[in-house]
This record gives sequence, C-alpha cells and structure tokens, in this order.
Amino acid sequence: MPDVLSSLDTVLLMGPGPSTISAEVYAAMAKPTLGHMDPQFFSLMDGIQESLRKVMETANAATITISATGSSGMETVMVNLVEEGEPMLIVVNGYFAARMAEVAGRLGAALDIIEFPYGKPVDVDEVAKKIKSKAYTLIGMVHGETSTGVLNPIDKIGALAKEAGAYFIVDAVTSLGGVRLLPDAWGIDALYSCSQKCIGCPSGLSPVTFSDRAMQKIFARKKKVPNFYLDMSLLMKYWSGSPRAYHHTAPANMYYGLYKALALILEEGPEKVHERHAQAHQYLAAELEKIGLFLLVDEPHRLPMLNTIVIPAGVDDAAVRRELRSAYKIEIGSGLGSLAGKIWRIGLMGYTAKKENVDILTGALKKILKR
Amino acid sequence: MPDVLSSLDTVLLMGPGPSTISAEVYAAMAKPTLGHMDPQFFSLMDGIQESLRKVMETANAATITISATGSSGMETVMVNLVEEGEPMLIVVNGYFAARMAEVAGRLGAALDIIEFPYGKPVDVDEVAKKIKSKAYTLIGMVHGETSTGVLNPIDKIGALAKEAGAYFIVDAVTSLGGVRLLPDAWGIDALYSCSQKCIGCPSGLSPVTFSDRAMQKIFARKKKVPNFYLDMSLLMKYWSGSPRAYHHTAPANMYYGLYKALALILEEGPEKVHERHAQAHQYLAAELEKIGLFLLVDEPHRLPMLNTIVIPAGVDDAAVRRELRSAYKIEIGSGLGSLAGKIWRIGLMGYTAKKENVDILTGALKKILKR
Repeated sequence: MPDVLSSLDTVLLMGPGPSTISAEVYAAMAKPTLGHMDPQFFSLMDGIQESLRKVMETANAATITISATGSSGMETVMVNLVEEGEPMLIVVNGYFAARMAEVAGRLGAALDIIEFPYGKPVDVDEVAKKIKSKAYTLIGMVHGETSTGVLNPIDKIGALAKEAGAYFIVDAVTSLGGVRLLPDAWGIDALYSCSQKCIGCPSGLSPVTFSDRAMQKIFARKKKVPNFYLDMSLLMKYWSGSPRAYHHTAPANMYYGLYKALALILEEGPEKVHERHAQAHQYLAAELEKIGLFLLVDEPHRLPMLNTIVIPAGVDDAAVRRELRSAYKIEIGSGLGSLAGKIWRIGLMGYTAKKENVDILTGALKKILKR
Repeated sequence: MPDVLSSLDTVLLMGPGPSTISAEVYAAMAKPTLGHMDPQFFSLMDGIQESLRKVMETANAATITISATGSSGMETVMVNLVEEGEPMLIVVNGYFAARMAEVAGRLGAALDIIEFPYGKPVDVDEVAKKIKSKAYTLIGMVHGETSTGVLNPIDKIGALAKEAGAYFIVDAVTSLGGVRLLPDAWGIDALYSCSQKCIGCPSGLSPVTFSDRAMQKIFARKKKVPNFYLDMSLLMKYWSGSPRAYHHTAPANMYYGLYKALALILEEGPEKVHERHAQAHQYLAAELEKIGLFLLVDEPHRLPMLNTIVIPAGVDDAAVRRELRSAYKIEIGSGLGSLAGKIWRIGLMGYTAKKENVDILTGALKKILKR
C-alpha cells in the first residue's frame, strides 16, 4: 500500500472550507492528548466556552462545541428542538437551507418551505406574510449561504420570529467569525457553525449556542431527544455539570486546535477579523472585474468570505479547477445543486482571508483563462 | 484569560482511553489540511478503508470511519439498523451495554434486556434460551466491556443470532486492535469502534463496518434514517460513490492521524499487536499481585487492554487517582455506575500497552499505597 500521507500537497485552500490553517493551530493540535475527564482538560473546555461566547457575541450559558463537523451542528439543533408534528417554517434560498429542511423533515417536523431564487437574498416582506399565516413553533434559515454566496437578513427575520413567538434557528456555518453576528440582539434561539471556515481550525467540530428559552424547550420535551450523542441536556452536564458527568470521549486534539484558533481571533480582535474579511473580499471583486470575471450576487447581499463567480461562457469549469489544483496548488469550489457548472466558489475565510492570497489566485486565473 | 494550552501536562494515559499516542501520529495530524473533495484526500480515504478491513479482518464493503467519536459509532449502528417497533434483545453486563439499550430505546426499538452481573461474562445458555423465546430482529452486545474489564463470547452469541436470523450488532470500542475479532466468521452484521483506544489515535473518529445484509436492511427501510449526519447510505456515496458525492466536510487532520495509526498497526502486524497487549496485561496482573492488588474479573474472561483492580478496603479511591495524576502524571480510570468507588480501571491500550509503562504505574502505586 503506498504511503499517501508522505506525499500530500500543501494546498492554498480557497474553496468553501476548509480554509488554510495557521502553523500555530497545527502545533496546538499536535500537543499531547489529555483524558476527557482530566482537570486541565476541563480548564481548556472552560476556555473554549468563554472564547466562543466572545466570538459569537452571546451571553448564552449553553454555548459549547459539538464533537463532530458542522453538519452535526445542524443535526444537533434540529434533533434537540424539533418534536414530531411541530409546525416549522424553513426559509430556503440555497442548498444548505434545503438541507435544513431535509434534516428537520427526517425528524418529523410539519414543514413549510418558503423558497427564493438561489443567488438572491430572501424577501423579508414575503417571509413576514408567511409567518403571519400560521402559528409556527420553529423558524429556520441560513445566515451566509455557502452554496450561493448570499448574506441573508437574519436580524429582520429574527424580529419577525420573536414577534410570532417562534423559536428561531440559524445556520452560521460560513458566517461565524467573518461577519458580525449578534444572536442575543437578533432573537436567535439556536445557532450552529463549524471549525474549518472563518474560525481557522481544521474540520471536526461544530460550535453551537442555545438561548435559555431554547434549553427550556429541550428540558420540557415530551419524548427524550432521539439522539444520545447530540442530546444537549447530557452534553451540558459534561460541559458544566457539578461534578461534570462523563458523556463521550471528547476529541482532545481537535479541542486544542479550536482553543488556539479562537484565541488567535480574540488576539487580533473580532472586529478587525471581520474587517480583514471585508477588505479581502472587496479586493477580490475588484481584481476579478479587471480580468472580466463577475460575482453572481448583487453588491449589498454578498458574503465576504464566500464569493461566487459566474463561469464565463465557453470556459470548462472542471478543467480550470483541475489546473488550479494541479499546477498552482490552489483549491476553489464548484457549484452545488442547480448552480453546478455555472459558478465557482472562492473562499476567503479565516487565515486565507488576505490580499496576498487574492493575488495568487487571480494571477493563476489570468494565466489559465489567458486574460 | 490564562493560556491553558501552553501549560498542559504530558500524561501517561493508563485509563479507559484515550491511550498514549505515538509521535508519528501527532506529526501526521499536524500535516496541512486538504479539502474533503480533493483527489489526494480521496486516496487517503481509500487507504483508511483498506487498512480498516485488514485491522477489522472483514471483507465488508461498508467499512468506513464515522466523523465523530466512538459514541457516535453506537449511534450510527442503531439509527441505521433500528426501525421503530422492531423487537431487539440487548445483552447487558456493563455500563456500555446499558447505553446501547438507552440509544436503541430512544430510537423506538421494542427492547428486551437480559442482564448479568457487572464483572461477570454473559451466560451463553441463558442468552440462547432468551433468543429462542421470541423472533428478535436485532441482537446487540458488547465485545469488551470498558466498564468492567470483561471479554464477552461474541463468537458464540453470533452463532445463536445467525441461527435465529437476527441482525447481530457488536460494540468493539475497547476490543478492536487489542484482541482478535472476526466479524465475518462470527456473524456480526454491524460493529463500531473508536480511534483512541487500541488503535492509538486521539479521540474523534469511530470506525464502523456493516455486512452486505445489514446494508440491504438500511436500503429497504420504510422511513429514511432519522439522522442525516450518520445516514450510512449517504456516507457510502461519499466514501465510494462514483463520482463521490459531498456529504459533510470530513475532518482531514483526524483522518491523517487514523491513517497513520492504522499503518503502524499493520507495520507491526495485528497478531503481534494483540500479543503485545496480552503480554502487558499478564505482566500487570503478576506485578499487581506482588503488591497485594487483585483484578475484579476471573482469569479466562479478562480483557487484556482494560484491567479492573479491586480497590482495597480503607483506600481512598479519589485520593490515589489524584496523587497518580499530580505527582506521577499518570491517568487511570475510576469505576463507572455501580462499580464507582469499588474499582480502578487500568488501560493498556495501543501505544500504552508496554511492560515499561506497567513498571511506571506499579512503581507509583507501591509508593502511594506504601506496599
């Protein structure tokens, strides 16, 4: 069997995540493993909670990381909050919002979907009308749609959900750490993200936060959460019980990486990190325009960390991505679902979000596309 | 906020897992992250599948790792194979078998439990009688009970399950890599393990294998698996679809660690690794006896990698563990459930399973217990 590990390329990760990781985070991940019930490990978990509350700008007690990837965060929020037959509205304008519906549907939510074109933001007035038409227990939507590059008006929909008394669930997988996000002020009851995009740690963890009101809903469930691994009431006994109760063997080295990645964000300052993402994005848009490439999303609704380029007519999508990867060691993302073949997805996330990386990418694109 | 990471102890991990990790595995985990759809990463995943089939001694096509810890492996097997109302027997003689029942119960299995005393092996004749009393769709049990140190006769119960036509589910979280395990010959339909015990990688992954027959049951489900993240039919499209279909962002650096840990086992030779575990265990039992400490489990039923010591009368359980950790930087485990305060759990798993580590531990115990 060939040793694949010894010949891995070092790739500049400019796709939809994972993003490029700093040497300090790798070093943290290679520190000696501690047991999941070790007092020092508990201190580290306390530090993760404290840092997450700062980066997430929330006072929620139930702010932890799930020991699995971002998709498990979606699963966690749904499996804890959805009870069979509850009316739920999901606002869909991309692949990941559609996945929210898939996950909630499997768990027995009585689903309504309000759909908008992929690549366009949701229409707040239409959503307001829909919310007024039925007493929804839960409303779910995506903050930054990884599949399209659209930033949705979470604050406005949050206010509508609050007025209606519904639990408001937000996917912040792509947005957290790259744009401002105010769960408490915006009326968010549950939010999930991931480690490998703007947070700047490899994939493997999913930060989540639940409002006190959401936790009360979980404690008052008629049936136990049909998922032991992701049961928030058990997880909270491990994260902050007194004494802490064993639940699962936390992936210590992943936690080290997350701890360090969060520390780096707090050291730089979350606002400055957001600003860095915005600047890299604006620079990318300007540089692309110079070579005749344009973004799919209209200006005020663009995600800074996930840029969707319209593939010019006559250009071979896969061939360009293959050449970027093989000749230039750059990864960019393909389109998902109905946008497959029509767009490229350029990530400027976390450690990747720098002008010099934009230059490397646009330089390569110029050569490949001969522009 | 104090920097917890910079002052972590290096601990000799002799508890119930995680085990001590080799420098080569840490180095693998610190290699540059690749995207989850990168061709080199797909080669690495192929390598993991190939290595897992060798270490697990199975020909099952559906042999992969779940992107979460061992507990998620239990969840995966149950959520895919259990359909609501199906009669299921769980053979319980420890904490983790009881957890199997908890997980399956949450998913709606019509559960029967046959229970044996913790610390004793299951009685095969009793189980045979129970299996003949009802047409069970599923039978579950634990191979090596982490909570008690008992090795259960999986081969014999597997034969009974096969005769009865039931799907046979086995927890090999502690046993895999440390004792021989023959899923195909023993009639196992689904088996889950973890990365952090005898495999010698940090926690974070859960290797699983499903027989073709088990996969057919999943494909024929009346309702979709009520868990998108752990749905085996979707996971197999990512692991071996043509083309591979995106499902979740695999935790690349954890996969690197598992790849390396499996390669180290195959390099040493699985039989030799089992032998090393057996030798370390026998040496520990002999050394303990010299200082008047005895194992809970009778000789033929002892797990080599998880040794349960009866705490002598008058000895303060927690104080001894605290002193081992603080003065000697050794972690051992406490008793779980009904065995709390009555036993210590000594892990000799993976890289930890060496005579020199036994000497370090028994040397420290001698001093602390003044024997």
